Amino acid sequence: MPNNFASRLDGISGSAIREIFKLLANPQIISFAGGNPAPESFPKEKLAEISSRVLLENGERILQYGPTRGYGPLMDEVLDIAKKQGIKADLSNIIITSGSSQGIELMAKTFINKGDVILVESPTFIGAIQTFKTYEANLVAVKTDEEGILLDDLEAKIKKHSPKFLYAIPTFQNPSGVTLAEDRREKLVKICSENSVKILEDDPYGELRFSGEKVSPLKSFDKDDTVIRLVSFSKIISPGIRVGAAIGDNEVISKFELFKQGMDVHTTNLAQVMVYEYLKSGDLDGHIKEIIRSYSEKKALMLSLIKSEFPSGIKISPCDGGLFIWLTLPSGVDTLNIFKKAVKKNVAFVPGTHFFAQGGNNNTLRLNFSMVSKEKIEEGMKILGKVIKDNI
Amino acid sequence: MPNNFASRLDGISGSAIREIFKLLANPQIISFAGGNPAPESFPKEKLAEISSRVLLENGERILQYGPTRGYGPLMDEVLDIAKKQGIKADLSNIIITSGSSQGIELMAKTFINKGDVILVESPTFIGAIQTFKTYEANLVAVKTDEEGILLDDLEAKIKKHSPKFLYAIPTFQNPSGVTLAEDRREKLVKICSENSVKILEDDPYGELRFSGEKVSPLKSFDKDDTVIRLVSFSKIISPGIRVGAAIGDNEVISKFELFKQGMDVHTTNLAQVMVYEYLKSGDLDGHIKEIIRSYSEKKALMLSLIKSEFPSGIKISPCDGGLFIWLTLPSGVDTLNIFKKAVKKNVAFVPGTHFFAQGGNNNTLRLNFSMVSKEKIEEGMKILGKVIKDNI
Repeated sequence: MPNNFASRLDGISGSAIREIFKLLANPQIISFAGGNPAPESFPKEKLAEISSRVLLENGERILQYGPTRGYGPLMDEVLDIAKKQGIKADLSNIIITSGSSQGIELMAKTFINKGDVILVESPTFIGAIQTFKTYEANLVAVKTDEEGILLDDLEAKIKKHSPKFLYAIPTFQNPSGVTLAEDRREKLVKICSENSVKILEDDPYGELRFSGEKVSPLKSFDKDDTVIRLVSFSKIISPGIRVGAAIGDNEVISKFELFKQGMDVHTTNLAQVMVYEYLKSGDLDGHIKEIIRSYSEKKALMLSLIKSEFPSGIKISPCDGGLFIWLTLPSGVDTLNIFKKAVKKNVAFVPGTHFFAQGGNNNTLRLNFSMVSKEKIEEGMKILGKVIKDNI
Repeated sequence: MPNNFASRLDGISGSAIREIFKLLANPQIISFAGGNPAPESFPKEKLAEISSRVLLENGERILQYGPTRGYGPLMDEVLDIAKKQGIKADLSNIIITSGSSQGIELMAKTFINKGDVILVESPTFIGAIQTFKTYEANLVAVKTDEEGILLDDLEAKIKKHSPKFLYAIPTFQNPSGVTLAEDRREKLVKICSENSVKILEDDPYGELRFSGEKVSPLKSFDKDDTVIRLVSFSKIISPGIRVGAAIGDNEVISKFELFKQGMDVHTTNLAQVMVYEYLKSGDLDGHIKEIIRSYSEKKALMLSLIKSEFPSGIKISPCDGGLFIWLTLPSGVDTLNIFKKAVKKNVAFVPGTHFFAQGGNNNTLRLNFSMVSKEKIEEGMKILGKVIKDNI
């Protein structure tokens, strides 16, 4: 029978990225392409102990249907963390999500009518671009520099397009690694608030700071329910358990709850209880310190190999934390072509064009330094350096 | 800041049902309202052992991001089960979902344009009504009798409305408990196929048969990718882990994969591995037998109490399995009113009107017999019988 799909699928393929990740199934590939944490960083013994204990103690409740909003003690704990960051919120302002990607989907479903303008950073997270496109949004890129979103351009784009919301990853941005300067943050929230433009603040990497001064979440400057903040445990505990949260206006969160009922009824209870118990165990701070130590070493190694193995004339975006290094090669260089050549030599990355809502920027690329071992970083970066040298 | 929500939220409240379930937070309430399995039926010791073991053995993989399609060995296992039911499918035809509710959401997002007609049984699952409404579908009810969907009415409604798909729960239907007769199944699939109407077959209760002859899944009669079948482990292992699957046309399943990336990237790996290991343990058949023994006793008790404690003139829909008894009271009786009175005496059920896409049918109600203990069934049904007697 022919498939008469909904029109929201017109022009959506998502195939370029899927093709990249299919290639990576080859275990020989040294992949700088993903956004995966280091597998050796997962606290598997602790989580094994927790999962078994909580199922034996509370299996009747954990294995039963749970509330769509989430597990109460976990929500309290996430609110406590938010409070320490200067965020005012109570139980009416929070919902547990199945990873922060679900928060992006919920925001899209709650706000986007076909043709609505959504402002995004340029470049931005591929998953968000794709989700907004499935709601037939019109994505408009806001200009950024090495300190994040340019406020003048933000104001101009707001005046011109009357967008529904701004999607931003203000800290250790994906893919650029850039952090929005502290002195732009309050102003950014004020500009959006005054123009009735919501902000979706996606902050999965904020805890992973290697250097520089701490910054405040956009939500901490929010005075009138402008900001919906997405929290994730994927990069500090585990992505495979799929636990995040959204914090914001109670009216918005209650719409998220309504839509989450259809998407998965609730986030797996066992995963929620495991995150709660891990947070309560007191292990998290030391665990994050260990992740930071490991990732900052890997990042430094990757940077030194860019210096020694790559051709000159490559711009490296500033990066004080997170998972990514963003490179701009001399103009005219095509990283899609370099990608094909590199994969033949078993090294992968993501060509930068995929991170731009309107494509282009073919001379950019993203490297992930968190997942691969130091030995493989050394090996892979030498190969990649040679491929780039041979192709520019 | 005011909220400028998407127009798909116009006219959607979902509040009636949420109000019911808020009331149930009161632990004193004897609730026949939910669709919850018996908490004592969950294999918590086995799942505790599995969770700890697999995390220690494979934590690096289980705690990492996983493929959106799902955990390969679990997909193979689900396909094996499907094969035994006469269903032809391979890995291109399956995706693991975060409960079968997510399958309904994925089907809606993949097929529904605003205003599209979706055929539903009358009555039908509240969650599906709500999900389809969030995609601005036009729900049209197909008439049913004690053997399920009336094929004449199905054909007439197809000719009249050119629907995108039929949503059906053919076995131990929620809320009516009714099973589509075996001799209507092949014809139903043929009618839909000939008219290019897809079928979404939701089958969470099919394994829980207390009496009568086994029936074949609609999908087993499918010759041309008409049927997308939703499988759930919620009623036979645990709903709290949120694991189900969708089986159908590979083109449709690849759209589901695209949309699932946004909804939660993938279903919690630990939950998928736990279901796989439980299926492989060989415990499931015995476990299902034990659930059937317990639920059929509870159902028989509830039926006997309807006879002894309720007024006469109540029609009981035939029910050979599942979780629900569906009652039709004399016309003119308002179960919304009876619900209010019953809750004051700490007994709850779901007024039947909520299960009808267009409302009405105020003299119907749904009783769940799986969750409450036999003692509480006895106590609650006596109270409910008195409330009904006093209010008709």
